Amino acid sequence: MLDRLFSPRAIAVIGASPEPRRPGGHALIALKDYGFDGEVFPINPRYAEINGMRCYPSVQDLPRLCDLALVAVPSADVPAVIEACGRAGIRFAIVFSAGFSEIGEAGADLQASLEAAIRTSGVRVVGPNCVGILNLGRRMFAGFGAGFRNPHWRGGPVAMISQSGGFSYSIAAFCQEQGIGMDCMVSTGNETDLTALDFIEYFLEQDPIRLVAVYLEGLKDGRRLRALGKRALEVGKPIAVWKVGNTESGRKAAVSHTANLTEDYDYYRDAFREGGFIELREVYDLIDAAKVFRFSRRTAGRRVAVVTTSGGAGVLISDRCEESGLELAELTPATKNELAQLVPSFASLANPVDLTAALAQTEPKFSQATELVVSDPNVDLVILRSYPGRDAQIWAANLVASAPALSKPVLISLSGTPKDAHAWASSLDEAGIACYEAPSRAVTAAAMLCQFSERERRLRTATAPVRNVPQQPLDARIRFDEVRAKQFLEGYGIRTPRRLFVPIQGELPARIELQFPIAVKIVSADIAHKTEVGGVQLRIEQAALSRTLRQMHAEVSSRAPQAQLTGFLLEEMPQGVEMLLGALVNPAFGPIVVLGMGGTQAEIYRDVARRYAPFGVDEARDLLLSLRSARLLEGYRGAPPADIPALCELVSRVSWLIADHQNAISEIEMNPVLVGSLGRGVYAVDAVIRLAAEGEVASPSSGRTQS
Amino acid sequence: MLDRLFSPRAIAVIGASPEPRRPGGHALIALKDYGFDGEVFPINPRYAEINGMRCYPSVQDLPRLCDLALVAVPSADVPAVIEACGRAGIRFAIVFSAGFSEIGEAGADLQASLEAAIRTSGVRVVGPNCVGILNLGRRMFAGFGAGFRNPHWRGGPVAMISQSGGFSYSIAAFCQEQGIGMDCMVSTGNETDLTALDFIEYFLEQDPIRLVAVYLEGLKDGRRLRALGKRALEVGKPIAVWKVGNTESGRKAAVSHTANLTEDYDYYRDAFREGGFIELREVYDLIDAAKVFRFSRRTAGRRVAVVTTSGGAGVLISDRCEESGLELAELTPATKNELAQLVPSFASLANPVDLTAALAQTEPKFSQATELVVSDPNVDLVILRSYPGRDAQIWAANLVASAPALSKPVLISLSGTPKDAHAWASSLDEAGIACYEAPSRAVTAAAMLCQFSERERRLRTATAPVRNVPQQPLDARIRFDEVRAKQFLEGYGIRTPRRLFVPIQGELPARIELQFPIAVKIVSADIAHKTEVGGVQLRIEQAALSRTLRQMHAEVSSRAPQAQLTGFLLEEMPQGVEMLLGALVNPAFGPIVVLGMGGTQAEIYRDVARRYAPFGVDEARDLLLSLRSARLLEGYRGAPPADIPALCELVSRVSWLIADHQNAISEIEMNPVLVGSLGRGVYAVDAVIRLAAEGEVASPSSGRTQS
Repeated sequence: MLDRLFSPRAIAVIGASPEPRRPGGHALIALKDYGFDGEVFPINPRYAEINGMRCYPSVQDLPRLCDLALVAVPSADVPAVIEACGRAGIRFAIVFSAGFSEIGEAGADLQASLEAAIRTSGVRVVGPNCVGILNLGRRMFAGFGAGFRNPHWRGGPVAMISQSGGFSYSIAAFCQEQGIGMDCMVSTGNETDLTALDFIEYFLEQDPIRLVAVYLEGLKDGRRLRALGKRALEVGKPIAVWKVGNTESGRKAAVSHTANLTEDYDYYRDAFREGGFIELREVYDLIDAAKVFRFSRRTAGRRVAVVTTSGGAGVLISDRCEESGLELAELTPATKNELAQLVPSFASLANPVDLTAALAQTEPKFSQATELVVSDPNVDLVILRSYPGRDAQIWAANLVASAPALSKPVLISLSGTPKDAHAWASSLDEAGIACYEAPSRAVTAAAMLCQFSERERRLRTATAPVRNVPQQPLDARIRFDEVRAKQFLEGYGIRTPRRLFVPIQGELPARIELQFPIAVKIVSADIAHKTEVGGVQLRIEQAALSRTLRQMHAEVSSRAPQAQLTGFLLEEMPQGVEMLLGALVNPAFGPIVVLGMGGTQAEIYRDVARRYAPFGVDEARDLLLSLRSARLLEGYRGAPPADIPALCELVSRVSWLIADHQNAISEIEMNPVLVGSLGRGVYAVDAVIRLAAEGEVASPSSGRTQS
Repeated sequence: MLDRLFSPRAIAVIGASPEPRRPGGHALIALKDYGFDGEVFPINPRYAEINGMRCYPSVQDLPRLCDLALVAVPSADVPAVIEACGRAGIRFAIVFSAGFSEIGEAGADLQASLEAAIRTSGVRVVGPNCVGILNLGRRMFAGFGAGFRNPHWRGGPVAMISQSGGFSYSIAAFCQEQGIGMDCMVSTGNETDLTALDFIEYFLEQDPIRLVAVYLEGLKDGRRLRALGKRALEVGKPIAVWKVGNTESGRKAAVSHTANLTEDYDYYRDAFREGGFIELREVYDLIDAAKVFRFSRRTAGRRVAVVTTSGGAGVLISDRCEESGLELAELTPATKNELAQLVPSFASLANPVDLTAALAQTEPKFSQATELVVSDPNVDLVILRSYPGRDAQIWAANLVASAPALSKPVLISLSGTPKDAHAWASSLDEAGIACYEAPSRAVTAAAMLCQFSERERRLRTATAPVRNVPQQPLDARIRFDEVRAKQFLEGYGIRTPRRLFVPIQGELPARIELQFPIAVKIVSADIAHKTEVGGVQLRIEQAALSRTLRQMHAEVSSRAPQAQLTGFLLEEMPQGVEMLLGALVNPAFGPIVVLGMGGTQAEIYRDVARRYAPFGVDEARDLLLSLRSARLLEGYRGAPPADIPALCELVSRVSWLIADHQNAISEIEMNPVLVGSLGRGVYAVDAVIRLAAEGEVASPSSGRTQS
């Protein structure tokens, strides 16, 4: 769809200028002088000619059809220019001009006009307020500023999309100096029409691109981001995403930068974790990812072998591996035996394998030893400390020669500096054996590779999420009080405590078939916080029941005199571990389930697991086990193991419920859910359902906990 | 003390060789050719001359006194060589030879001989199994291998000490390429005599050194490490410590590397946090620290102003500041007013201050705006994004000119690459305005600077820890049962629940002056885990007391028939928040207090605060507030605020107790301590004291909690 944007046959530069410091001047020079192989037409009624090129007064005067227009005119003129482009058959425009939504109120009218012009003209627009796009394959430098000033930039299998024009140059330039070329770069500006998501989608399908990098402050369509994350796994190309504006300070800064007020970072993080994303925190991470992902070698697990010639780096790498969730592989006895015949007797054959500096001087033994470790069936990937001796070049050449036959990823941690290694490191990089200038960066890259490989495997074996409960209808006209909320949950197979409803003027039955002690709660559609008006009593014995009802009636009547009281809810009080289970629908990202341990401590430690709905029982188990507090359910310190299977069933059912009714329900809160011991089941003890239409508490039940 | 080691008048190279690849050959060449201004004497009975230098058969044949010997002989000969050095009046030796403790059992005998030779000769030894030392001030390259091969290395105000010879070269070489020179480097090898601590102590007192960097796998004298941390603050020179071997995998690797089995990383971390240490995780951190600490400018607080010309980097820097515990300063209205007169109307004057790229083109306005931000009284330091335009050199020159007058630290985040900036970045670095190639590294450096400045301030205002309880005698002959442990704690002003001891055959008094319900516990010096034999009953009412004692007597007698039962302890059960308070004595690092919330959840989240003892009430409050769960004591969700003042008193008293008796007591465990609501005090409900001599549980009380 965007082919002609990145590969136009001819380009019109509207607002072309002879002044090279102006956007319309810079872009013209870059298109003319840096080797673009299409035609370029300057447009400006004030000039007959610019830099020896004939200049046209307007797009309707063009001698042939252009696919793309660069727009560098005063912001007030932009809407008319876009309309003119539409009339002239130009399908794409890149608007450099600023002064729209990013300046707030002052730009609102112009923003509206621009949106209308885009709608009516059908022109697809990049920007406004962007610095342009770069396609090195066509030598197309269609932009201005520092990023479009260097004709010697090298291409490479990375495409970069940036919501910050200025910062994108810093990133790309740094990558260039580190040997990472980018075939394409896009500055998306205000994203009035085309967004970062459009470009992610496009680049994922472009053959030479192996990694899509995105500098992101925020976006509106989280569901599409998630879909693209899945697509990234399908095509085996990571989206390296550098999301900023994640803290309170960062969000404030982002708002004043691009007016991009977005959802909490949590929703992004959850989306990144479920799909084919690699999260970046610095430009180094991008370089490291690019080096490891431009080849398609993947890992089958997380077992790393570390091979060094000096112990110090091995200790450091071991630390970083453990911190990054990688395991140090246990070499097979066969490998150790064969190694022992190659290396000096004082070499360490544990992992890290220290081949010793002595061996490093004696090729081909060193290469043979390396090969033995790589071939070990217990090893999924190898981090190899580079040969520190004077013969490093021979060592590297041997390794390059063996590269095609390597069955596993091998990453190099350089023992010297990039200068020391410059004679041979790039040949290793080119052979798919990436070299890293700091040990922890090699480990970071290894962890990225393992993580992405794992998610690819998971996608290959995954089926659609398995429904463990049939869909139930929801009458969106009813208001959910606690009784109705529980009835609705029961329709989804969710257990609630046995209960008895007693009308406010009714008599207690002679025989109450509940197990005492019980909970007693007031039922009233008019009371939002029943605990606060004395509407909840716990651990009531049968003997005290009548008295409790009388007292509650009196107390609630006096503290909430306006409320119409419907009756009392008498409920059994199941025993178990208290958990908190919620489900909510984020307008941008969709329905999500939130699970955590109950109680104030869990709240303070923010030990909460989240996952987009719907999902099956297996995924519910993964979710549960990602809680640090999950150990409390597994028979911690002699407690009986909890009914984890029943809990996983429940969590999956709630995910289906929220997915089924994501348009009607905004939030469900079950606080607490009580998890009994194994075989005893799980109960939703309190339940609040909020409807999307209300935007308000729908249930009279409330307060965060019963007690 | 080590002056003549680093600045010898003459050096003997014992085991000198004409072969440049051998340690004794390499060192000889490096000393001769790289400009060392002292005399050098090769020693080897097999040669009359090496490289044109007269060679001596042994140290006793030397024509003059040498201050230092380099020892590169077979390991078996090393002890005799050290003895000969002693006889020849040589005070220092650097032993390159390997084959001692680092090879385990096989090297044990030789290790013992070497230790004996050191003792009897009085020679101070670096190594064995080290690569040497470097003192660029004297052009002394007294070592071998990659680190001693480059005569062009530049000196600088950093001294590096490394427990890994090979890795130290990687670090130093990388720093060199990044413009960080090191005046001195030491490889400490096996540390049979001189240790990393000796060198830290030495370098802290050397004038030109501003930063002492240490690559550390482990050490034996944690108390001395802590004392050096304090000294670092006194002299205003950070110890940049790169500790590795901190994870399980890393520790295993370290053991097989240098046999350095050391304490848990926790003890190191606690020592690093109390003193003048900067913890490094990568070589970049060292570079960043060196750039910011080679000047003595410090911050008065954590309020950062961020100044950019493009929003993107500002958002990222804001995120990183918040994550690093820095605050974004709120500029004064006066500053904003003055700025508004300089910058375009669409510039953002919130922090990050976005001066806009437009202004960047118009010096001197850009410099004036920068100066306004730096002068703002609400600002403690400034992170300034470098000027991206073609006039960067003018901008940089203006900034360098203003540097001497800058009242606060200014750090630069480069907007381009190091190559873009190479014409001017080093002039800024030299002027004390450090330039960082990645935004987050500028923030890391800023955070290091703020942290060290804070600790310096704290030290300046600190007095000796204030005793809040007089020392009490300890009779180390007694064994602590629960009653005696509590009596001892009471001597330190620690409250325990009111109690009554009833002898095993005694009668219950007619009137029991305890508030029921109470706890009942068996007392017996023979029972280690009284809960497990039925020796603890909680929440006993008066009516059930006789029966409880009878049943407990019967049950304990039957489950522990050999135990001699002394009696029963009847105790009140105060109410409050359960906490866990412990104190222990680490053989290497000294006495430490450990505080955490009670209960299984706190255990799982490892929310534990630790501090070396003794300390006063204010420090106890800092310790408490460093717990994430401290909020639970502050009146969380409507609960009454807990008696924090009483808890702080208690924690400080325990710190004095463990400090007073650190030779006698190995551990105190109070689990739980009950913190009542404000004014109600704090009670040690259970107490176990273990004596150092026993190395065993001394108290019959046990089990992790009472209940």
